[in-house]
Amino acid sequence: MKDERGILFILSGPSGVGKGTVRKSLFEKDPALEYSISVTTREPREGERNGIDYFFKKREEVQKMIEADELIEYAEYVGNYYGTPKEYVEKTLDEGKDVFLEIEVQGAMKVRENFPEGVFIFLFPPSLEVLKNRIINRGTETEDLVLNRLKEAQKEIDMMDAYDYVVVNDEVEKAVARIQSIVVSEHCKRERVAKQYQKALGSERI
Amino acid sequence: MKDERGILFILSGPSGVGKGTVRKSLFEKDPALEYSISVTTREPREGERNGIDYFFKKREEVQKMIEADELIEYAEYVGNYYGTPKEYVEKTLDEGKDVFLEIEVQGAMKVRENFPEGVFIFLFPPSLEVLKNRIINRGTETEDLVLNRLKEAQKEIDMMDAYDYVVVNDEVEKAVARIQSIVVSEHCKRERVAKQYQKALGSERI
Repeated sequence: MKDERGILFILSGPSGVGKGTVRKSLFEKDPALEYSISVTTREPREGERNGIDYFFKKREEVQKMIEADELIEYAEYVGNYYGTPKEYVEKTLDEGKDVFLEIEVQGAMKVRENFPEGVFIFLFPPSLEVLKNRIINRGTETEDLVLNRLKEAQKEIDMMDAYDYVVVNDEVEKAVARIQSIVVSEHCKRERVAKQYQKALGSERI
Repeated sequence: MKDERGILFILSGPSGVGKGTVRKSLFEKDPALEYSISVTTREPREGERNGIDYFFKKREEVQKMIEADELIEYAEYVGNYYGTPKEYVEKTLDEGKDVFLEIEVQGAMKVRENFPEGVFIFLFPPSLEVLKNRIINRGTETEDLVLNRLKEAQKEIDMMDAYDYVVVNDEVEKAVARIQSIVVSEHCKRERVAKQYQKALGSERI
Protein backbone atom coordinates (compact mmCIF):
# COMPACT_ATOMS: atom_id res chain seq x y z
CA MET A 1 0.00 0.00 0.00
CA LYS A 2 1.38 3.42 -0.96
CA ASP A 3 1.54 6.29 1.55
CA GLU A 4 -1.06 8.30 -0.30
CA ARG A 5 -4.45 6.74 -0.93
CA GLY A 6 -5.82 7.13 -4.43
CA ILE A 7 -8.50 9.74 -5.16
CA LEU A 8 -11.97 8.84 -6.40
CA PHE A 9 -13.01 11.21 -9.20
CA ILE A 10 -16.64 11.24 -10.29
CA LEU A 11 -17.41 12.62 -13.74
CA SER A 12 -21.10 13.28 -14.16
CA GLY A 13 -23.49 15.69 -15.84
CA PRO A 14 -26.75 15.82 -17.74
CA SER A 15 -27.77 13.24 -20.29
CA GLY A 16 -26.28 14.07 -23.70
CA VAL A 17 -23.53 16.36 -22.42
CA GLY A 18 -20.84 14.02 -23.74
CA LYS A 19 -19.60 12.25 -20.61
CA GLY A 20 -18.64 9.08 -22.50
CA THR A 21 -16.67 10.90 -25.19
CA VAL A 22 -14.77 13.01 -22.67
CA ARG A 23 -14.03 9.98 -20.51
CA LYS A 24 -12.68 7.97 -23.48
CA SER A 25 -10.43 10.83 -24.58
CA LEU A 26 -9.21 11.32 -21.00
CA PHE A 27 -8.24 7.66 -20.71
CA GLU A 28 -6.43 7.68 -24.04
CA LYS A 29 -4.30 10.58 -22.79
CA ASP A 30 -3.74 9.31 -19.26
CA PRO A 31 -3.28 5.53 -19.10
CA ALA A 32 -2.40 5.74 -15.37
CA LEU A 33 -6.02 6.44 -14.45
CA GLU A 34 -8.12 3.46 -13.50
CA TYR A 35 -11.58 3.46 -14.95
CA SER A 36 -14.33 1.86 -12.97
CA ILE A 37 -16.63 0.07 -15.36
CA SER A 38 -20.32 0.26 -14.51
CA VAL A 39 -22.90 -2.47 -14.71
CA THR A 40 -26.03 -1.68 -16.71
CA THR A 41 -29.19 -3.40 -17.87
CA ARG A 42 -29.59 -1.23 -20.97
CA GLU A 43 -28.93 -2.63 -24.46
CA PRO A 44 -25.40 -2.07 -25.84
CA ARG A 45 -25.21 0.74 -28.43
CA GLU A 46 -23.31 0.14 -31.66
CA GLY A 47 -19.61 -0.37 -30.93
CA GLU A 48 -20.00 -0.80 -27.17
CA ARG A 49 -18.28 -3.87 -25.78
CA ASN A 50 -19.14 -5.88 -22.68
CA GLY A 51 -16.49 -5.62 -19.96
CA ILE A 52 -14.94 -2.55 -21.57
CA ASP A 53 -17.63 0.11 -21.92
CA TYR A 54 -20.03 -1.49 -19.45
CA PHE A 55 -20.80 -4.81 -17.88
CA PHE A 56 -24.10 -5.54 -19.65
CA LYS A 57 -26.25 -7.56 -17.27
CA LYS A 58 -29.77 -8.85 -16.91
CA ARG A 59 -32.17 -7.09 -14.60
CA GLU A 60 -32.21 -10.02 -12.14
CA GLU A 61 -28.41 -10.09 -11.95
CA VAL A 62 -28.19 -6.39 -11.02
CA GLN A 63 -30.99 -6.80 -8.49
CA LYS A 64 -28.98 -9.59 -6.81
CA MET A 65 -25.89 -7.32 -6.63
CA ILE A 66 -28.02 -4.58 -5.05
CA GLU A 67 -29.39 -6.99 -2.43
CA ALA A 68 -25.86 -8.21 -1.63
CA ASP A 69 -24.72 -4.56 -1.20
CA GLU A 70 -22.10 -5.00 -3.93
CA LEU A 71 -22.71 -1.63 -5.58
CA ILE A 72 -21.50 1.77 -4.29
CA GLU A 73 -24.41 3.34 -6.05
CA TYR A 74 -27.07 2.34 -8.52
CA ALA A 75 -29.81 4.21 -10.27
CA GLU A 76 -32.73 3.45 -12.49
CA TYR A 77 -32.64 5.79 -15.45
CA VAL A 78 -35.10 5.79 -18.34
CA GLY A 79 -36.10 2.27 -17.32
CA ASN A 80 -32.61 0.78 -16.88
CA TYR A 81 -30.25 0.08 -13.97
CA TYR A 82 -26.75 1.61 -13.84
CA GLY A 83 -24.41 0.75 -10.96
CA THR A 84 -20.79 0.84 -9.69
CA PRO A 85 -19.13 -2.29 -8.23
CA LYS A 86 -17.83 -1.51 -4.74
CA GLU A 87 -14.99 -4.02 -4.37
CA TYR A 88 -12.97 -2.80 -7.35
CA VAL A 89 -13.11 0.85 -6.26
CA GLU A 90 -11.94 0.24 -2.67
CA LYS A 91 -9.14 -2.10 -3.69
CA THR A 92 -7.78 0.31 -6.30
CA LEU A 93 -7.84 3.34 -3.97
CA ASP A 94 -5.98 1.31 -1.31
CA GLU A 95 -3.27 0.59 -3.89
CA GLY A 96 -2.72 4.36 -4.19
CA LYS A 97 -4.31 4.59 -7.63
CA ASP A 98 -6.93 7.11 -8.69
CA VAL A 99 -10.30 5.76 -9.78
CA PHE A 100 -12.51 7.51 -12.30
CA LEU A 101 -16.27 6.98 -12.36
CA GLU A 102 -18.37 8.26 -15.22
CA ILE A 103 -21.97 8.07 -14.07
CA GLU A 104 -25.41 9.64 -14.27
CA VAL A 105 -26.30 12.47 -11.89
CA GLN A 106 -28.62 10.31 -9.75
CA GLY A 107 -25.78 7.83 -9.17
CA ALA A 108 -23.26 10.57 -8.38
CA MET A 109 -25.51 11.84 -5.59
CA LYS A 110 -25.43 8.37 -3.98
CA VAL A 111 -21.63 8.19 -4.28
CA ARG A 112 -21.49 11.57 -2.52
CA GLU A 113 -23.26 9.95 0.47
CA ASN A 114 -20.87 6.97 0.57
CA PHE A 115 -17.64 8.77 -0.46
CA PRO A 116 -17.83 12.40 0.67
CA GLU A 117 -14.03 12.58 0.15
CA GLY A 118 -14.51 11.94 -3.59
CA VAL A 119 -13.92 14.75 -6.10
CA PHE A 120 -17.12 15.52 -8.00
CA ILE A 121 -16.85 17.02 -11.49
CA PHE A 122 -19.95 18.26 -13.32
CA LEU A 123 -19.69 18.30 -17.11
CA PHE A 124 -21.67 21.26 -18.36
CA PRO A 125 -23.16 21.82 -21.84
CA PRO A 126 -22.13 25.01 -23.66
CA SER A 127 -25.90 25.66 -24.14
CA LEU A 128 -29.25 23.81 -23.94
CA GLU A 129 -29.47 24.03 -27.74
CA VAL A 130 -26.22 22.08 -28.09
CA LEU A 131 -27.47 19.53 -25.56
CA LYS A 132 -30.72 19.03 -27.48
CA ASN A 133 -28.88 18.57 -30.78
CA ARG A 134 -26.51 16.05 -29.21
CA ILE A 135 -29.40 13.98 -27.87
CA ILE A 136 -31.20 14.10 -31.25
CA ASN A 137 -28.06 13.34 -33.28
CA ARG A 138 -27.32 10.32 -31.17
CA GLY A 139 -30.23 8.91 -33.21
CA THR A 140 -31.10 6.23 -30.70
CA GLU A 141 -34.12 7.91 -29.15
CA THR A 142 -37.70 8.54 -30.22
CA GLU A 143 -39.06 12.12 -30.15
CA ASP A 144 -40.81 11.49 -26.84
CA LEU A 145 -37.60 10.16 -25.34
CA VAL A 146 -35.69 13.24 -26.53
CA LEU A 147 -38.12 15.57 -24.74
CA ASN A 148 -38.02 13.30 -21.70
CA ARG A 149 -34.22 13.36 -21.64
CA LEU A 150 -34.11 17.14 -22.06
CA LYS A 151 -36.45 17.64 -19.11
CA GLU A 152 -34.28 15.26 -17.07
CA ALA A 153 -31.19 17.21 -18.18
CA GLN A 154 -32.71 20.47 -16.93
CA LYS A 155 -33.35 18.87 -13.52
CA GLU A 156 -29.84 17.45 -13.48
CA ILE A 157 -28.28 20.87 -14.18
CA ASP A 158 -30.09 22.15 -11.10
CA MET A 159 -28.12 19.58 -9.09
CA MET A 160 -24.80 21.17 -10.00
CA ASP A 161 -24.56 22.69 -6.52
CA ALA A 162 -23.60 19.33 -5.04
CA TYR A 163 -20.40 19.20 -7.13
CA ASP A 164 -16.85 20.39 -6.47
CA TYR A 165 -16.01 21.43 -10.03
CA VAL A 166 -17.87 22.49 -13.16
CA VAL A 167 -16.19 21.83 -16.52
CA VAL A 168 -17.75 23.17 -19.73
CA ASN A 169 -17.70 20.65 -22.58
CA ASP A 170 -17.31 23.25 -25.33
CA GLU A 171 -14.61 21.15 -26.99
CA VAL A 172 -13.63 17.63 -25.93
CA GLU A 173 -9.89 18.45 -25.94
CA LYS A 174 -10.39 21.49 -23.73
CA ALA A 175 -12.70 19.69 -21.33
CA VAL A 176 -10.17 16.84 -21.01
CA ALA A 177 -7.32 19.31 -20.32
CA ARG A 178 -9.37 20.95 -17.57
CA ILE A 179 -10.11 17.58 -15.97
CA GLN A 180 -6.42 16.65 -16.12
CA SER A 181 -5.61 19.91 -14.32
CA ILE A 182 -8.16 19.08 -11.63
CA VAL A 183 -6.50 15.67 -11.11
CA VAL A 184 -3.01 17.22 -10.74
CA SER A 185 -4.32 20.01 -8.53
CA GLU A 186 -6.19 17.67 -6.18
CA HIS A 187 -2.94 15.75 -5.63
CA CYS A 188 -1.33 19.03 -4.47
CA LYS A 189 -4.06 19.77 -1.90
CA ARG A 190 -2.39 20.47 1.42
CA GLU A 191 -4.74 18.32 3.49
CA ARG A 192 -3.87 15.29 1.31
CA VAL A 193 -0.08 15.69 1.24
CA ALA A 194 1.04 17.67 4.29
CA LYS A 195 1.46 14.63 6.53
CA GLN A 196 3.70 12.68 4.19
CA TYR A 197 5.86 15.74 3.45
CA GLN A 198 6.34 16.53 7.11
CA LYS A 199 7.21 12.88 7.73
CA ALA A 200 9.79 12.96 4.92
CA LEU A 201 11.51 15.98 6.47
CA GLY A 202 11.11 14.76 10.05
CA SER A 203 14.39 12.83 10.13
CA GLU A 204 16.29 15.84 8.82
CA ARG A 205 15.48 18.47 11.45
CA ILE A 206 18.29 20.88 12.22
CA MET B 1 -15.81 44.54 -15.28
CA LYS B 2 -16.03 40.88 -16.27
CA ASP B 3 -18.61 38.54 -14.73
CA GLU B 4 -15.98 36.52 -12.91
CA ARG B 5 -13.62 38.33 -10.59
CA GLY B 6 -9.94 37.41 -10.93
CA ILE B 7 -8.32 35.06 -8.44
CA LEU B 8 -5.47 36.08 -6.16
CA PHE B 9 -2.80 33.35 -6.07
CA ILE B 10 -0.13 33.51 -3.41
CA LEU B 11 3.09 31.61 -4.04
CA SER B 12 5.16 31.31 -0.90
CA GLY B 13 7.48 28.91 0.88
CA PRO B 14 10.69 28.80 2.88
CA SER B 15 13.70 30.94 2.09
CA GLY B 16 15.86 29.30 -0.59
CA VAL B 17 13.14 26.99 -1.95
CA GLY B 18 13.26 28.70 -5.36
CA LYS B 19 10.14 30.90 -5.35
CA GLY B 20 11.69 33.52 -7.66
CA THR B 21 12.89 30.99 -10.25
CA VAL B 22 9.53 29.20 -10.33
CA ARG B 23 7.65 32.50 -10.60
CA LYS B 24 9.81 33.72 -13.51
CA SER B 25 9.35 30.45 -15.40
CA LEU B 26 5.59 30.53 -14.74
CA PHE B 27 5.30 34.04 -16.15
CA GLU B 28 7.31 33.17 -19.24
CA LYS B 29 4.86 30.33 -19.94
CA ASP B 30 1.67 32.18 -19.06
CA PRO B 31 1.74 35.85 -20.12
CA ALA B 32 -1.94 36.27 -19.16
CA LEU B 33 -1.07 36.16 -15.47
CA GLU B 34 -0.55 39.52 -13.78
CA TYR B 35 2.38 39.62 -11.44
CA SER B 36 2.18 41.89 -8.43
CA ILE B 37 5.58 43.43 -7.89
CA SER B 38 6.59 43.83 -4.25
CA VAL B 39 8.32 46.76 -2.64
CA THR B 40 11.47 45.96 -0.67
CA THR B 41 14.21 47.77 1.22
CA ARG B 42 16.82 45.08 0.57
CA GLU B 43 19.70 45.69 -1.85
CA PRO B 44 19.15 44.49 -5.44
CA ARG B 45 20.97 41.23 -6.24
CA GLU B 46 22.91 40.96 -9.49
CA GLY B 47 20.57 41.19 -12.47
CA GLU B 48 17.56 42.38 -10.48
CA ARG B 49 15.87 45.45 -11.96
CA ASN B 50 13.83 48.11 -10.18
CA GLY B 51 10.14 48.07 -11.20
CA ILE B 52 10.44 44.58 -12.71
CA ASP B 53 11.75 42.24 -10.01
CA TYR B 54 10.95 44.56 -7.10
CA PHE B 55 10.36 48.19 -6.35
CA PHE B 56 13.54 48.92 -4.44
CA LYS B 57 12.75 51.60 -1.87
CA LYS B 58 14.29 53.35 1.11
CA ARG B 59 13.21 52.35 4.60
CA GLU B 60 11.45 55.69 5.17
CA GLU B 61 9.44 55.35 1.94
CA VAL B 62 8.12 51.92 2.89
CA GLN B 63 7.31 53.12 6.40
CA LYS B 64 5.21 55.91 4.86
CA MET B 65 3.31 53.39 2.71
CA ILE B 66 2.64 51.27 5.81
CA GLU B 67 1.30 54.27 7.73
CA ALA B 68 -0.96 55.22 4.78
CA ASP B 69 -2.31 51.62 4.69
CA GLU B 70 -1.15 51.23 1.09
CA LEU B 71 0.20 47.69 1.53
CA ILE B 72 -1.89 44.49 1.72
CA GLU B 73 0.85 42.95 3.76
CA TYR B 74 4.37 43.75 4.75
CA ALA B 75 6.99 41.90 6.68
CA GLU B 76 10.42 42.52 8.05
CA TYR B 77 12.67 39.66 7.10
CA VAL B 78 16.38 39.39 7.91
CA GLY B 79 16.36 43.13 8.57
CA ASN B 80 14.50 44.28 5.45
CA TYR B 81 10.92 45.24 4.58
CA TYR B 82 8.95 43.39 1.90
CA GLY B 83 5.41 44.54 1.01
CA THR B 84 2.56 44.27 -1.53
CA PRO B 85 0.87 47.41 -2.93
CA LYS B 86 -2.89 47.18 -2.31
CA GLU B 87 -4.29 49.36 -5.12
CA TYR B 88 -2.81 47.36 -8.00
CA VAL B 89 -4.12 44.03 -6.64
CA GLU B 90 -7.73 45.19 -6.13
CA LYS B 91 -7.94 46.93 -9.51
CA THR B 92 -6.59 43.92 -11.41
CA LEU B 93 -8.93 41.44 -9.69
CA ASP B 94 -11.90 43.70 -10.48
CA GLU B 95 -10.90 43.61 -14.16
CA GLY B 96 -11.34 39.83 -14.03
CA LYS B 97 -7.60 39.10 -14.19
CA ASP B 98 -5.71 36.75 -11.91
CA VAL B 99 -2.98 38.24 -9.75
CA PHE B 100 0.07 36.32 -8.61
CA LEU B 101 2.00 37.24 -5.49
CA GLU B 102 5.36 35.68 -4.71
CA ILE B 103 6.11 36.51 -1.10
CA GLU B 104 7.74 35.34 2.09
CA VAL B 105 5.78 33.14 4.51
CA GLN B 106 5.27 35.94 7.08
CA GLY B 107 3.70 38.14 4.39
CA ALA B 108 1.49 35.33 3.10
CA MET B 109 0.00 34.89 6.56
CA LYS B 110 -1.06 38.56 6.55
CA VAL B 111 -2.58 38.25 3.07
CA ARG B 112 -4.56 35.29 4.41
CA GLU B 113 -6.13 37.62 7.00
CA ASN B 114 -7.03 40.29 4.39
CA PHE B 115 -7.88 37.98 1.46
CA PRO B 116 -9.19 34.67 2.84
CA GLU B 117 -10.58 33.97 -0.66
CA GLY B 118 -7.04 33.90 -2.08
CA VAL B 119 -5.47 30.61 -3.17
CA PHE B 120 -2.36 29.86 -1.11
CA ILE B 121 0.37 27.69 -2.64
CA PHE B 122 3.30 26.50 -0.56
CA LEU B 123 6.47 25.70 -2.50
CA PHE B 124 8.16 22.79 -0.78
CA PRO B 125 11.83 21.74 -0.95
CA PRO B 126 12.55 18.15 -2.07
CA SER B 127 14.69 17.89 1.11
CA LEU B 128 16.35 20.09 3.74
CA GLU B 129 19.74 19.17 2.23
CA VAL B 130 18.70 20.65 -1.12
CA LEU B 131 17.39 23.75 0.63
CA LYS B 132 20.70 24.24 2.46
CA ASN B 133 22.72 23.85 -0.75
CA ARG B 134 20.52 26.34 -2.56
CA ILE B 135 20.99 28.95 0.16
CA ILE B 136 24.77 28.38 0.19
CA ASN B 137 25.10 28.36 -3.61
CA ARG B 138 23.25 31.63 -3.88
CA GLY B 139 26.58 32.93 -2.55
CA THR B 140 25.14 36.12 -1.15
CA GLU B 141 25.06 35.12 2.50
CA THR B 142 27.64 34.74 5.24
CA GLU B 143 27.84 31.43 7.14
CA ASP B 144 25.87 32.88 10.06
CA LEU B 145 23.18 34.10 7.71
CA VAL B 146 22.93 30.66 6.10
CA LEU B 147 22.27 29.00 9.47
CA ASN B 148 19.86 31.81 10.35
CA ARG B 149 17.96 31.32 7.08
CA LEU B 150 17.87 27.54 7.54
CA LYS B 151 16.34 27.89 10.99
CA GLU B 152 13.80 30.36 9.60
CA ALA B 153 13.06 27.89 6.79
CA GLN B 154 12.32 25.14 9.32
CA LYS B 155 9.85 27.41 11.12
CA GLU B 156 8.29 28.39 7.80
CA ILE B 157 7.77 24.76 6.80
CA ASP B 158 5.83 24.29 10.03
CA MET B 159 3.39 26.96 8.75
CA MET B 160 2.40 24.86 5.74
CA ASP B 161 -0.92 24.03 7.42
CA ALA B 162 -2.28 27.48 6.61
CA TYR B 163 -1.96 26.83 2.85
CA ASP B 164 -4.39 25.37 0.30
CA TYR B 165 -1.83 23.58 -1.86
CA VAL B 166 1.68 22.16 -1.47
CA VAL B 167 3.85 21.96 -4.59
CA VAL B 168 7.23 20.21 -4.44
CA ASN B 169 9.97 22.11 -6.26
CA ASP B 170 11.87 19.01 -7.35
CA GLU B 171 12.27 20.42 -10.87
CA VAL B 172 11.27 23.94 -11.91
CA GLU B 173 9.38 22.72 -15.01
CA LYS B 174 7.36 20.22 -12.97
CA ALA B 175 6.58 22.71 -10.22
CA VAL B 176 5.42 25.27 -12.82
CA ALA B 177 3.17 22.68 -14.51
CA ARG B 178 1.58 21.83 -11.15
CA ILE B 179 0.93 25.51 -10.43
CA GLN B 180 -0.60 25.97 -13.89
CA SER B 181 -2.92 23.04 -13.14
CA ILE B 182 -3.94 24.66 -9.86
CA VAL B 183 -4.80 27.89 -11.73
CA VAL B 184 -6.98 26.05 -14.29
CA SER B 185 -8.59 23.91 -11.62
CA GLU B 186 -9.45 26.85 -9.36
CA HIS B 187 -11.27 28.46 -12.30
CA CYS B 188 -13.44 25.31 -12.55
CA LYS B 189 -14.46 25.38 -8.87
CA ARG B 190 -18.21 25.16 -8.65
CA GLU B 191 -18.64 27.93 -6.09
CA ARG B 192 -16.81 30.34 -8.42
CA VAL B 193 -18.61 29.52 -11.68
CA ALA B 194 -22.05 28.04 -10.86
CA LYS B 195 -23.86 31.38 -10.80
CA GLN B 196 -22.69 32.59 -14.18
CA TYR B 197 -23.42 29.21 -15.80
CA GLN B 198 -26.93 29.07 -14.41
CA LYS B 199 -27.49 32.63 -15.57
CA ALA B 200 -26.29 31.76 -19.07
CA LEU B 201 -28.80 28.91 -19.28
CA GLY B 202 -31.60 30.82 -17.55
CA SER B 203 -33.06 32.34 -20.71
CA GLU B 204 -33.19 28.94 -22.40
CA ARG B 205 -35.35 26.97 -19.98
CA ILE B 206 -37.68 24.49 -21.60
